[in-house]
Amino acid sequence: MRVLITGGTGFIGKKVAAALLRDGGLAIDGGEPKPVEHLTLFDAFPGEGVPTDERVELVTGDIADPATVERVARDADVVWHLAAIVSANAEADFELGYRVNLDGTRVLLEVMRATGRRPRLVFASSCAVYGGDVPEVITDETHLTPQTSYGTQKAMGELLVADYSRKGFVDGRSLRLPTIVVRPGKPNKAASTFASSIIREPLAGQEAVCPVERDAAMYVLSPRRVVAALFRAMQLPDEAFGMTRAIVLPGITATVAEMVDALRTVGGDAAVRRIRWEADPAIQRIVRGWPARIDAERARRMGFEADRSFEEIVRAHVEDELGGKVAA
Amino acid sequence: MRVLITGGTGFIGKKVAAALLRDGGLAIDGGEPKPVEHLTLFDAFPGEGVPTDERVELVTGDIADPATVERVARDADVVWHLAAIVSANAEADFELGYRVNLDGTRVLLEVMRATGRRPRLVFASSCAVYGGDVPEVITDETHLTPQTSYGTQKAMGELLVADYSRKGFVDGRSLRLPTIVVRPGKPNKAASTFASSIIREPLAGQEAVCPVERDAAMYVLSPRRVVAALFRAMQLPDEAFGMTRAIVLPGITATVAEMVDALRTVGGDAAVRRIRWEADPAIQRIVRGWPARIDAERARRMGFEADRSFEEIVRAHVEDELGGKVAA
Repeated sequence: MRVLITGGTGFIGKKVAAALLRDGGLAIDGGEPKPVEHLTLFDAFPGEGVPTDERVELVTGDIADPATVERVARDADVVWHLAAIVSANAEADFELGYRVNLDGTRVLLEVMRATGRRPRLVFASSCAVYGGDVPEVITDETHLTPQTSYGTQKAMGELLVADYSRKGFVDGRSLRLPTIVVRPGKPNKAASTFASSIIREPLAGQEAVCPVERDAAMYVLSPRRVVAALFRAMQLPDEAFGMTRAIVLPGITATVAEMVDALRTVGGDAAVRRIRWEADPAIQRIVRGWPARIDAERARRMGFEADRSFEEIVRAHVEDELGGKVAA
Repeated sequence: MRVLITGGTGFIGKKVAAALLRDGGLAIDGGEPKPVEHLTLFDAFPGEGVPTDERVELVTGDIADPATVERVARDADVVWHLAAIVSANAEADFELGYRVNLDGTRVLLEVMRATGRRPRLVFASSCAVYGGDVPEVITDETHLTPQTSYGTQKAMGELLVADYSRKGFVDGRSLRLPTIVVRPGKPNKAASTFASSIIREPLAGQEAVCPVERDAAMYVLSPRRVVAALFRAMQLPDEAFGMTRAIVLPGITATVAEMVDALRTVGGDAAVRRIRWEADPAIQRIVRGWPARIDAERARRMGFEADRSFEEIVRAHVEDELGGKVAA
């Protein structure tokens, strides 16, 4: 099989790539694993820590440029489309957000359509498609009322994936991702970046800023679980996905206070003292616009799993990123 | 005021234009009517029966071409965006549908954004944004699950209008239109065109083909009522529209059998005998995919009104288009 990951040098892209290279194949439709012959990691940036493997080709370029995307996507049998301008960045740079998040998705779908082979696509959408005046608990039937340009672009991407799938041009699957914590690496321009920072930096002995109140709640999923979900979504048969081709992933709801409690359990009081509380009204407004309580019933029935607790999320981070050690 | 109507030579565009020229102004936000100084009718085709008036300028061109749209939209204070490739045509010509219905809407919004004046926009969306496995009765909270490319493009247009409005670039309002019957003129490429044909042609002494079964139900609105709705949507204050900027318009649900009954009441048995029944599975499939029962509660509270019966719709057609006379 030939595999393409857009956003391939981002942190999730690299984790998917590493898992794929380790497993060596994909059990499409639950069948015998098909070996991966070629893996293209496509991104705007070369990134760091990209797997070195003879099957891997790293390509950097503009996802909204048809010729570039044609080159990386025309031979792909399966595509994980993870490339995106994140929320706060898409809100600050209106044109860039539409260019990458909307045009990029459309260009990719057009190249996949032109192959005539109905390649398989897993699209990383986001729970930011929900927003504003939504029910207390979101379900798979809640209407999409994004209150950010990022969420708008993801909702539009889902509609494209559904239409291209309905027409038989691609076999698309959209996953609405919860906020992923704990992200490794450095803070990014996502409004949600603090939720990783307030765990990651204190455990590494560094100070972190928390821009929201302790009662702010978020719907979260660990990197381990999101990678598992991206694989499951790629390997499930066509029929598992309904007419919208989209599902919201199971996650857990955690307040900032609960996140800090888990940090204390794993890293001690010293870790908690490394959080500096500095309210940022712009970030607060965006975060409060995101729904915190979601019942992902359909995805659960399809075998997708949430983390069991925020403490499990913190412990997974310590195991996967810190070699099991936390700063004293 | 300077007014732009896209799709200005289409049948609704011409009716809006005629009403605007007759009234001479728009009571924006319920205030004193502001006189219309200039009215641009923009369309891909010159059309027929375009109002001749010194205030009117007819421009033909491609709505997906930024330079063209810049020329017609940069000075507009208010815009009715009615231009669209209709449902069956967008389904048959995938690229044309996306070009006009998605790119055209985006190009228009970009030109309006560039003015920096936050012009007002009424966008003609469609009940085709609903589809597939939806509740028995659709409401304003039902999620958008279009099952046609046309519906997909309209749903994406709504998302754009909402995002551009939220950012303060335009003051947008999206109306989900029921199927409009009785359309004057000739059949078009909409899958719904038969619903007008089976009334219009028999009343004019001509034969019409009905491609769907008698129990097929549709959610419909008359040309009179849709023109009134387009004016109301333009004149209501900003605050009347919620976070989605979109409402579904009140209509009535009528089966084909009920339509034929109303035809009999107004035009007699002779008219009914002019209907030839020839099932078309492709049309049937599209029409059955549209929801027939919608509770447009929010729009009703905002003062939008449905026709009182299908007979009222037929009688309005006879008055407005046939000078009160029906074929014997």
